[in-house]
This record gives sequence, C-alpha cells and structure tokens, in this order.
Amino acid sequence: MRVLGIDPGLRFMGWGVITVRGNVLGHVANGVCEGRGTEMGLRLHSLFAQLEEVIAAHMPDCAAIEQTFVNRDAAGSLKLGQARGVALLALARAGLQTAEYAPNAIKKTVVGTGHAAKEQIAHMVRLQFPGVALAGPDAADAMAIAMTHAFHARNGARLAEALARAEGPRP
Amino acid sequence: MRVLGIDPGLRFMGWGVITVRGNVLGHVANGVCEGRGTEMGLRLHSLFAQLEEVIAAHMPDCAAIEQTFVNRDAAGSLKLGQARGVALLALARAGLQTAEYAPNAIKKTVVGTGHAAKEQIAHMVRLQFPGVALAGPDAADAMAIAMTHAFHARNGARLAEALARAEGPRP
Repeated sequence: MRVLGIDPGLRFMGWGVITVRGNVLGHVANGVCEGRGTEMGLRLHSLFAQLEEVIAAHMPDCAAIEQTFVNRDAAGSLKLGQARGVALLALARAGLQTAEYAPNAIKKTVVGTGHAAKEQIAHMVRLQFPGVALAGPDAADAMAIAMTHAFHARNGARLAEALARAEGPRP
Repeated sequence: MRVLGIDPGLRFMGWGVITVRGNVLGHVANGVCEGRGTEMGLRLHSLFAQLEEVIAAHMPDCAAIEQTFVNRDAAGSLKLGQARGVALLALARAGLQTAEYAPNAIKKTVVGTGHAAKEQIAHMVRLQFPGVALAGPDAADAMAIAMTHAFHARNGARLAEALARAEGPRP
C-alpha cells in the first residue's frame, strides 16, 4: 500500500509518499509544493497542478491530511482553508480515500506524546527513514502524517482480523 | 462582457451570469451548486464539477466573488475557506480574471447602504432584472456580486477614458 501524506498550507504544502508492507515502512519520495503567484486564484492553481503531478508520479493508494484548527484570526483560517480545499479536491479527483488526523494524534503516534515540538517530529521521521533527505519541515510533517495513517491502518487491519477470528467458525 | 458572480458556500454556492453592454445589464442565467456527499473531498469535488459546467455553459469573460470574513469560529472559517478555494481554483483554471468585493461594498453598490438586509439585495436584483426567476437567496447574492463588478468595471472604464482625454493630444 502506498500512502500520500499532506501537510496543507498556502505558501508551502508538504507531501510525502511511503510504502507499507506489513510492519515495514519504506520511503518513496517527499517534497514541498509552492503556492506561486500574487493572486489567490493563481496560487491555488499552482498548488493544485503540482499536487496533481505528485499524485501522477507516485500513484498512491490512499491519502492522509492534517486536520487543521487555527487559533489565529478568521482571515488566517479562511486562507488555510482555501489551500486545504484545493488539496482535498486533488485527492478526491484522483479517487483517493483520504483520512484526517488531528495534530495531536499525529504527534502522539509518531513521537509518543501529543505535545511534541516540530523538531522532534522531524527527528522521528529521520529515525524511521535513515538516510532519506527531507525537503524541509513541511515535508517532514507530511511524512509524519503518512506514517500516522500507516500505523492506524495496520491496527485497523489487526482489529478486523482479531474480530474475524473471534467470530470465526464455531464447533 | 459577461460577468460570473459567485457567492461561495460549502452546501450551497450561488452563481449568476450577466451581460454588460454600456449601461445595460442583461440576465443570462443563475443557479446554485450543491455540495453533495458526506465526505469533505467528495463535496468539494461535486462543487468544482458543477462550477466547471457553469463556466463551460455560459462562457463568462471575467468573474467576481465575495470577500468573506467569518466572525464565527475558526472551524467555520476553515470550512468556508475550503469551498472558496475550490471556487477560486475553478475560475483560475478557466483563465478568468477574478475581482473580490467585500460584503459591505456589494450592499453599498446594489442597495445604496452597507448595512442592507439579505431580502433587500434580492429585491434590488429583481428590480434590475424584472421577470427573471432567481434560484434562491444564494443565487440572488451571486447576481448582486456580478452587478457590483459591472458597476465598478464601468466606472473604471470611464475613469480610464477621462484620464486618456485629459492626457490626450495637446495643441
């Protein structure tokens, strides 16, 4: 299974693609899409086009994105929402099932605590994928989001398996 | 000139297309795109697809959209932002120059005061386009946004003309 993780942002949108084979995670690629242009529409368009290229190049089977809650002003949330909407659209157009994880859930999964610093996340991503060059903090976050989905999907599969065994053929 | 006005929203996205010939405004079509689906990605995708159909069917030359500032919670702004991002993307992909107008500017242009009620806007739109059936309050708002752009574009053209005359051939 190939998972695409997305860390949404209007200027920089991080992405990371990993493979999941049983307990083994593999790195495929990571990077950052840049929102280029002075007008909002052009910027969103450039993000969308770059995301479509990423999806076409790396053919993920599913996706995961950060659930964002901004504490700043409403205008900031609106802008971030615009970038996030374009990302969700690109994923839906590609037919990718997309899971959403809250920032705390991502930190808890990857670092072990819900209140980890950004550097800690990058550190754990590097530990998981030694020797892999990360395209920046947004790409590291996106890799962490993909890892979170891999862990959750694996546990979900184990649960389904256990349930199937428990409900299995009876004497 | 054909102007497409958009009133962005996640459940209902109003749209209206008008023609501008000198001082005369004409109605082309208006309607509401519905965000269908339970998942956010699918809903955004359905809005995007409907908007693309509207653009293909009515071939506007430019567009105008409401500048939204939400006073509610950040989560509400984020959701609205997602819908707005998808609308801006559809317009940019179609190569349409898009103007943005604050709600107050739209009310002031169409009704004459920045603090008009929603019903007053619909009333003025009906006055401007007698006999035209409006597809609902969101469609009426979208028509008002298109009208606002028509008035501003016209005044802009007049200003440019006056400036050209003032700077014209001298004796």
